[in-house]
Amino acid sequence: MALITEKFLRNIMAQQKLSKEFLLQEGDKLTPSAKDFLMDRKISIVQPGSSESAPHLRLTIPVGVSNRHVHLTEKHFHVLFGETEGVTELRPLSQPGQFAARETVTIVGPSGVIRNVRILGPFRGLTQVEISRTDGFTLGIHPQVRLSGSIDGTPGITLVGPEGAVTLQEGLIVAKNHVHMSGADAQRFDVKHGDSLMLGSEERRVIFQDVIVRVKDSYILDFHVDQDEANAAGLSTGDRVVVLGKNRRFYSPYLGVLPDG
Amino acid sequence: MALITEKFLRNIMAQQKLSKEFLLQEGDKLTPSAKDFLMDRKISIVQPGSSESAPHLRLTIPVGVSNRHVHLTEKHFHVLFGETEGVTELRPLSQPGQFAARETVTIVGPSGVIRNVRILGPFRGLTQVEISRTDGFTLGIHPQVRLSGSIDGTPGITLVGPEGAVTLQEGLIVAKNHVHMSGADAQRFDVKHGDSLMLGSEERRVIFQDVIVRVKDSYILDFHVDQDEANAAGLSTGDRVVVLGKNRRFYSPYLGVLPDG
Repeated sequence: MALITEKFLRNIMAQQKLSKEFLLQEGDKLTPSAKDFLMDRKISIVQPGSSESAPHLRLTIPVGVSNRHVHLTEKHFHVLFGETEGVTELRPLSQPGQFAARETVTIVGPSGVIRNVRILGPFRGLTQVEISRTDGFTLGIHPQVRLSGSIDGTPGITLVGPEGAVTLQEGLIVAKNHVHMSGADAQRFDVKHGDSLMLGSEERRVIFQDVIVRVKDSYILDFHVDQDEANAAGLSTGDRVVVLGKNRRFYSPYLGVLPDG
Repeated sequence: MALITEKFLRNIMAQQKLSKEFLLQEGDKLTPSAKDFLMDRKISIVQPGSSESAPHLRLTIPVGVSNRHVHLTEKHFHVLFGETEGVTELRPLSQPGQFAARETVTIVGPSGVIRNVRILGPFRGLTQVEISRTDGFTLGIHPQVRLSGSIDGTPGITLVGPEGAVTLQEGLIVAKNHVHMSGADAQRFDVKHGDSLMLGSEERRVIFQDVIVRVKDSYILDFHVDQDEANAAGLSTGDRVVVLGKNRRFYSPYLGVLPDG
């Protein structure tokens, strides 16, 4: 992304020791004197995407943006929709077996209502409603950020369908961002289930510094964020974020270069 | 935020050299053996907020969340509101002389309308409309992220007031996040006008990695984000973010501690 000059490298060195590898990013160019400067100090110059680069360098993960949605128990579905056959699939989601249903509900909070909230299938053992913090202002209710499935002590909410309504005692969350990956991907990223990744968006320059890793062999690699996070980071489904570190430690303190000046 | 054990420190050391100072964060506790471990290695233990800590360590900046708003030229104001005396002040903003006006306008895009959009005063030389990316979906128009005042080539939008309407040819932006600070603050933070800061929210663990510094002696220290950024980071006006680095380089690759386990 930039022309890297000797002066720029000297500026970095004035503030920190350079590591044994100098990692170029896509589009970076070194001036001849900058190249000599690195070679004199026996610092290897690593090309972007090079096989010499460490496994974590410039690895990226595709983004999936989740809009507000509801997971239902079979029982709650039938309260809301009556004695129908069950949910019907509108389209599959990124994770195998998961789908967006044709059916939607209205969610009702103390100060507002959100219509056409998509049900995701298949049925689950607990009903859970995932909204953004923005939606919380519409509804007048401000749930905590939680990993899916962790609904202990969260607020309730009312769901309304064409045939009935359900008032939950708990189950309303803002979803904690997380990455799904297979065991093979976990090896490639050098992480295990429960680790925390640091992922950077280059579009609007935000880093998600505590993204929980969920590993299962059937999982497809996908970084799940909600609509607020996507908007703040300028991300859309299918964009990619860069892996910058894990467990609250960056692989490098140095996030690419700014033009020299 | 955590109990720091000897095992935890050894884990860090296995991956990187500890610096000469070990910086405690608010609420961190060292076990006796962890304390001995550091003292044996002549690593000083720096208490949070201690005068011994380096100038940049644990410096924080208060957050100001900007909702969508409009800056108007005097001429456009009179088209929208007729021959009145001018804007009237509802309440002052954080920067001296700036205020939220009682008057609001409706902004109209190709696929939607947003009502009650606040005018900020005083009048400016150019009319500019600042919305969030979320608002862009409502309006059906997706402006670039730009610093205030930099509206060249941005999309236009229609503003409607009680007495008339204005269709701008350009001036619709998503505001780039930035920090206002005085010259004295710039010294304290060791930055200059135009530098880029890396600021972390501890609430929802997001880092804004390219926050532009704007220095002027009359400025009050304030980090301006829009509603999407605030929601993604779990921030409200008056919260504080931590300074983690500048010009794309972190002061430390290590962002505090996770509980040992």
